[in-house]
Amino acid sequence: MDGARRGFLKRSIALLAAHGLISGRAKDAGAAEPPEVPPWMKSPGAGFNDYGVPAKYESKVTRTFGRSQPGTTGSGAIRTPLEALEGTITPSGLHFERSHSGVPDIDPARHRLLIHGMVKRPLIFTVDALLRYPMVSRVHFIECAGNSQLLYQPTPPSLTAGQTHGLVSCSEWTGVPLRLLLEEAGVDPVAPWILAEGADAAAMSRSVPMAKAMDDAILALFQNGERLRPENGYPVRLFLPGWEGNMSVKWLRRIKVVSAPVMTKDETSRYTDLQGDGKSLMFTYPMEVKSLITRPSHGMTVPGAGVYQISGIAWSGEGAIRRVEVTTDGGQSWGRATLDGPVLPRALTRFRLPWRWDGGAVVLKSRAVDDAGNVQPERAKFIAEHGNNAIFHCNAIQAWSVAPSGEVKHVYA
Amino acid sequence: MDGARRGFLKRSIALLAAHGLISGRAKDAGAAEPPEVPPWMKSPGAGFNDYGVPAKYESKVTRTFGRSQPGTTGSGAIRTPLEALEGTITPSGLHFERSHSGVPDIDPARHRLLIHGMVKRPLIFTVDALLRYPMVSRVHFIECAGNSQLLYQPTPPSLTAGQTHGLVSCSEWTGVPLRLLLEEAGVDPVAPWILAEGADAAAMSRSVPMAKAMDDAILALFQNGERLRPENGYPVRLFLPGWEGNMSVKWLRRIKVVSAPVMTKDETSRYTDLQGDGKSLMFTYPMEVKSLITRPSHGMTVPGAGVYQISGIAWSGEGAIRRVEVTTDGGQSWGRATLDGPVLPRALTRFRLPWRWDGGAVVLKSRAVDDAGNVQPERAKFIAEHGNNAIFHCNAIQAWSVAPSGEVKHVYA
Repeated sequence: MDGARRGFLKRSIALLAAHGLISGRAKDAGAAEPPEVPPWMKSPGAGFNDYGVPAKYESKVTRTFGRSQPGTTGSGAIRTPLEALEGTITPSGLHFERSHSGVPDIDPARHRLLIHGMVKRPLIFTVDALLRYPMVSRVHFIECAGNSQLLYQPTPPSLTAGQTHGLVSCSEWTGVPLRLLLEEAGVDPVAPWILAEGADAAAMSRSVPMAKAMDDAILALFQNGERLRPENGYPVRLFLPGWEGNMSVKWLRRIKVVSAPVMTKDETSRYTDLQGDGKSLMFTYPMEVKSLITRPSHGMTVPGAGVYQISGIAWSGEGAIRRVEVTTDGGQSWGRATLDGPVLPRALTRFRLPWRWDGGAVVLKSRAVDDAGNVQPERAKFIAEHGNNAIFHCNAIQAWSVAPSGEVKHVYA
Repeated sequence: MDGARRGFLKRSIALLAAHGLISGRAKDAGAAEPPEVPPWMKSPGAGFNDYGVPAKYESKVTRTFGRSQPGTTGSGAIRTPLEALEGTITPSGLHFERSHSGVPDIDPARHRLLIHGMVKRPLIFTVDALLRYPMVSRVHFIECAGNSQLLYQPTPPSLTAGQTHGLVSCSEWTGVPLRLLLEEAGVDPVAPWILAEGADAAAMSRSVPMAKAMDDAILALFQNGERLRPENGYPVRLFLPGWEGNMSVKWLRRIKVVSAPVMTKDETSRYTDLQGDGKSLMFTYPMEVKSLITRPSHGMTVPGAGVYQISGIAWSGEGAIRRVEVTTDGGQSWGRATLDGPVLPRALTRFRLPWRWDGGAVVLKSRAVDDAGNVQPERAKFIAEHGNNAIFHCNAIQAWSVAPSGEVKHVYA
């Protein structure tokens, strides 16, 4: 570094210290000269790589386990770090994962999909065969039915947005409409159900109503442009837009057309919703309308009074988001957030609202409404209606408190 | 494997061989029983990972160098393998990269952005400060001005779609509208230009008209949900939707508000378009309307007569795609492709068309029209108008021939 440049740098630093923040953010540059030449401009940078990875400075942005730890068999879940992300697309490397017996190592050349049962002509598909069928691309979220289950607990979890709600992700999925394959197999037009079975060691299996199978179900082969990731069902998964995640059976190997639900373990002992009155709901398919402020959120510190943009995500398994309302005073008043377009059905929608923080203790909440008119409920109302025995389908409003210190925490409010 | 299952497997294989293809794709399963249990269902699969990667079976899907080889300094380009991808989002690991002196290793805690020149109040921004500003998220392609330059050559390149046209990618970009920062700095309202400078060793610099800077320019901080990748400008890049890629200056460190274009090396000795008459065009900003069939494309083999879906991408720097027409008979007739929604301005749009191949020699082409009425030109017309001295802004129609053997090749037709 030459003397003149070093001198400029020192002057700049002094000015930064003297002038402080403008609008709480930028710093007065004082001089109008070019900034100091940083070391990384003084020699050529790195060459090319075949497949890129995130910056090393972002190595803390990873999937997280929430409260649970991974089992040796890979049964469990790993969550998307929602608080570190922006926009609506989840990078595939950070897509949440729920698996019941780990991620199978499936050779696509040996994988087969069978369609059988109440069909005229049982068919076996190779992956290459599936890749020849007409495809469609659609942006959709997928959410584990067990997402946000910590909100059933009597005390708020001391965990980040991602650790609490990160069993939801959103991708562009490309695949073959299931209807085409069922029709080719000569599906019995009055058959009311299908069974979908995965090729993992748990043989994860769910019964799916035929109406959904013939409507918008696809056999997904691509995720965000490239082939599915292993933990998201490579080489092929069922994808049921808006419905609870485990029905979008990964590593799909079999579809059987049947006359009644099969009552698999994954729809009887699991994925049923024990209500406050001791009865359980079964076959609760669409994920309910929901939203979440991701910035600021639990674990962050708001650096001082001033103007901020509140940013969050909203979604509904029953349609598109119509509006998101945000309160910055614990529910006394609500403002309407702007939605980044395009607002797509059954996809994450990013909402934003300017917020002037006066430095006092406040509570932030968001409330989503979908185009079917469903309104995200307050937690107290949700628990009063459903009890707190359940672990699935919690779409209660998330509250974050901001202390005068700037510390943001999960609260029930 | 028990005897019964082994017997079933043998029967299934025999049936596959005997029955052949149905609709040229699926195979008659013969029996309606569940398929053989594959080895990967017999023991638990892999556990969780913090940040996922593609399946090992997809290891050939990488960025490619086209004809050029990487320099030791990282000056050059590496391309998106368009023919292996579907939908419209490019996974960030496969986003094309053009760099002029490699990828700088920038510590975000030390990086600074200066806004100066014709402003009332020069400002310095840390990355943390930028992250506090209001953001927007938008899906946009970015295309290197030099994409598809091989089509200027007198003979068609014997390269894949990605090697020929893979200097275009599409992401969801999130960042701060540049207008906000210029206004905070008190930009002179009559100042007509800005200079944008990158923090790489080439100090890549371009002049940008103020109208664009105040319109839809953003300082991008996130790409497909996560922070920018190093090779795409981490920690912050300028992003100018629809305009030639190198104007979206990566590793942005300086914006100077100026009264005239600065005539940097990157807008005089490079990124000008030498026409057939010996004159050069300068400041050719929007990337022209363009499309490309990605499946089938050069290097693939169509496995036999039958029904296929033609799939491709279309885009325009001047708006949204209005329609894409496809010919499967070398231009005698054109059919209108369907477009996967949402069709967004200055974003890749996926088009699809069913195609029944009779097994004869044919030529496939696509032609895009944008909502400003621009029509993608035939190559012969394009070369007649522009000559073939240039290397930039080629949006000529791409033709692929299919031989009776099924072999697909790049042709001029």
